[in-house]
Amino acid sequence: MDDPREPYELTHELHPDDRRLVVKESPLNAEAAHPALAAAITPPGAHYVRSNFDAPAIDAAGHLIAVEGAVAEPFTLAAHDLASLPQRSVTVTLECAGNSRMGMSPLPHGEPWATGAVSTASWSGPSLTTLLDRAGLRDDVVEILVSGADRGTPAGAREATRFARALPLDKARDPDVILAVEMNGSPLPPEHGAPARLIVPGWYGMASVKWVARIAALTTAYEGWFQHERYVYLSGRERRPVDVVRVKSMIVAPEGNTGVARGRVTVWGWAWSGAAPVAAVDVALDGEAWQPAALDPPLAPHAWRRFTASIDVAAAGRHVLRARARDAAGRVQPDVAAWNEHGYGNNAIAPVVFYVY
Amino acid sequence: MDDPREPYELTHELHPDDRRLVVKESPLNAEAAHPALAAAITPPGAHYVRSNFDAPAIDAAGHLIAVEGAVAEPFTLAAHDLASLPQRSVTVTLECAGNSRMGMSPLPHGEPWATGAVSTASWSGPSLTTLLDRAGLRDDVVEILVSGADRGTPAGAREATRFARALPLDKARDPDVILAVEMNGSPLPPEHGAPARLIVPGWYGMASVKWVARIAALTTAYEGWFQHERYVYLSGRERRPVDVVRVKSMIVAPEGNTGVARGRVTVWGWAWSGAAPVAAVDVALDGEAWQPAALDPPLAPHAWRRFTASIDVAAAGRHVLRARARDAAGRVQPDVAAWNEHGYGNNAIAPVVFYVY
Repeated sequence: MDDPREPYELTHELHPDDRRLVVKESPLNAEAAHPALAAAITPPGAHYVRSNFDAPAIDAAGHLIAVEGAVAEPFTLAAHDLASLPQRSVTVTLECAGNSRMGMSPLPHGEPWATGAVSTASWSGPSLTTLLDRAGLRDDVVEILVSGADRGTPAGAREATRFARALPLDKARDPDVILAVEMNGSPLPPEHGAPARLIVPGWYGMASVKWVARIAALTTAYEGWFQHERYVYLSGRERRPVDVVRVKSMIVAPEGNTGVARGRVTVWGWAWSGAAPVAAVDVALDGEAWQPAALDPPLAPHAWRRFTASIDVAAAGRHVLRARARDAAGRVQPDVAAWNEHGYGNNAIAPVVFYVY
Repeated sequence: MDDPREPYELTHELHPDDRRLVVKESPLNAEAAHPALAAAITPPGAHYVRSNFDAPAIDAAGHLIAVEGAVAEPFTLAAHDLASLPQRSVTVTLECAGNSRMGMSPLPHGEPWATGAVSTASWSGPSLTTLLDRAGLRDDVVEILVSGADRGTPAGAREATRFARALPLDKARDPDVILAVEMNGSPLPPEHGAPARLIVPGWYGMASVKWVARIAALTTAYEGWFQHERYVYLSGRERRPVDVVRVKSMIVAPEGNTGVARGRVTVWGWAWSGAAPVAAVDVALDGEAWQPAALDPPLAPHAWRRFTASIDVAAAGRHVLRARARDAAGRVQPDVAAWNEHGYGNNAIAPVVFYVY
């Protein structure tokens, strides 16, 4: 705690129980465990996993990706050839759209995510736009649909479907949107979409399609299950696909429900936003006034940013800390996030309880 | 878990750590710990404690209580003489007005109570109305002010004050409002107000004044600190003294963040309401539909009521349970309770997370 940069990298091997917390065994859904969240780059085996369907059986050596639709020259590419295209690396804080769903009232349907469905990794692979350029997009293309090899019948659906999400053309052409074949310098693990996963920095995780099997240029908006029925903000008359990650922060220390000695307490955590860089974080003890935290230099344009504050806690007993992030676009974490039927985008300030002795 | 009546009484001695959870050491504020909440009558040393000031130094043998104000014959009574008046026993679920404050957003000022500032005990002593009758109330009396021997300067106040609360005359005359000298058949413990504590069934705990030193009949509404500045619902233009306990429920099993085997899971807990008897409790798993729980026979008119439900949980992983109580007056626990500046009366449905393996 004394060295403010120490938590950037863990100096010890994490026990498996300190890596991921399983929310559902099948299909695998797991949060990053608290000890893993102390590292800037989430340690191996700790990055959160969100799966709508079981991981497909893929023969990585022979896996093909079709690039087709409204293009001049559709083609099919072997996944193992992606590594021979120009590579780009992006360090990205990914957050599940349903992260913190359990904090919404009334409790929405969906996986009961607490606050650990957020993690940071470095991903490498060719830019999506490299493949789009090779295919030659027609002038009337509006969206790029990316489909995974995973398939099933979602709860509430009448028929089976693949996991698939569309990106607006502008976003799909962002060179930082890549088809990752490596994660943190190692081959992509199966649960993260091997052999190829789309990585869409700044957007909630549903856009980062795993086990990519097909890339299709569309001339009308896609209205498949995961674009129109799920991963939409649905409330009253509103129905809008989930997209950019909302500004949010997470207190890492003190850890919730642990004890610290009275006196100066170092508070630190991470803050992130999809729309713009994090500009400020404030912290508050108990019901008291907000005070500014210090921000460490940014790690990377699409990664979370570390904040620290030193606060004086004199009274023994239970206390509550809160952190509130603001981004350069002026967005501020709310006390309560707008409720929606599936509980997406909950970026509300999350109080952390700790004890002083 | 198999015998639905077993949790009514604990068959083992509780470790001190399993009795109370200290929220503040001085003045003492402590919640009932989870293991203690499994008993209908909260075990010795486990009943929650709320103190605004440190316990006063009282010589119980010589402690006097003044009964005065707008009465025909003011008098002073030795506390030890209360036991020789006609005794009445009431079994009461007391809840702190600030219980569940930590569930409100934005976080209000005040002690950071989680969900354990609620407990049940049997209290004995003379009815308050016996003393009022002896003094002879004037016709123009509107409130009975009860003051404790505890004194201090509250945070935010300019001057020192005693803890004191007024009851409307009707409520003060309810024979179930007693000056307790015994708790669960033993002499009142110091932290619960020895030698005499007012017990006001159906009202939040602030009305149950500890260390009673003075009972005064008033002809105008009392506007002291704890009636007008604290223990008031304060929000926008609303300013209303906190009074009747709102309908609420608490899931005792499964315990939050514990694991249970997959299959039929017995869910049980307590429900209470100050306004009317509990009429129904519903439970819901994850985001699913509400289903009715069974209610055990009432323990006592002013005590919580036990509910049980058996639900099938097939999938391994994390799950969420909710319980929602309804009382005979038609009041139903809300998803979100109305926010107010000091965070009183939060009776919102409180999801409990558990794991199935």
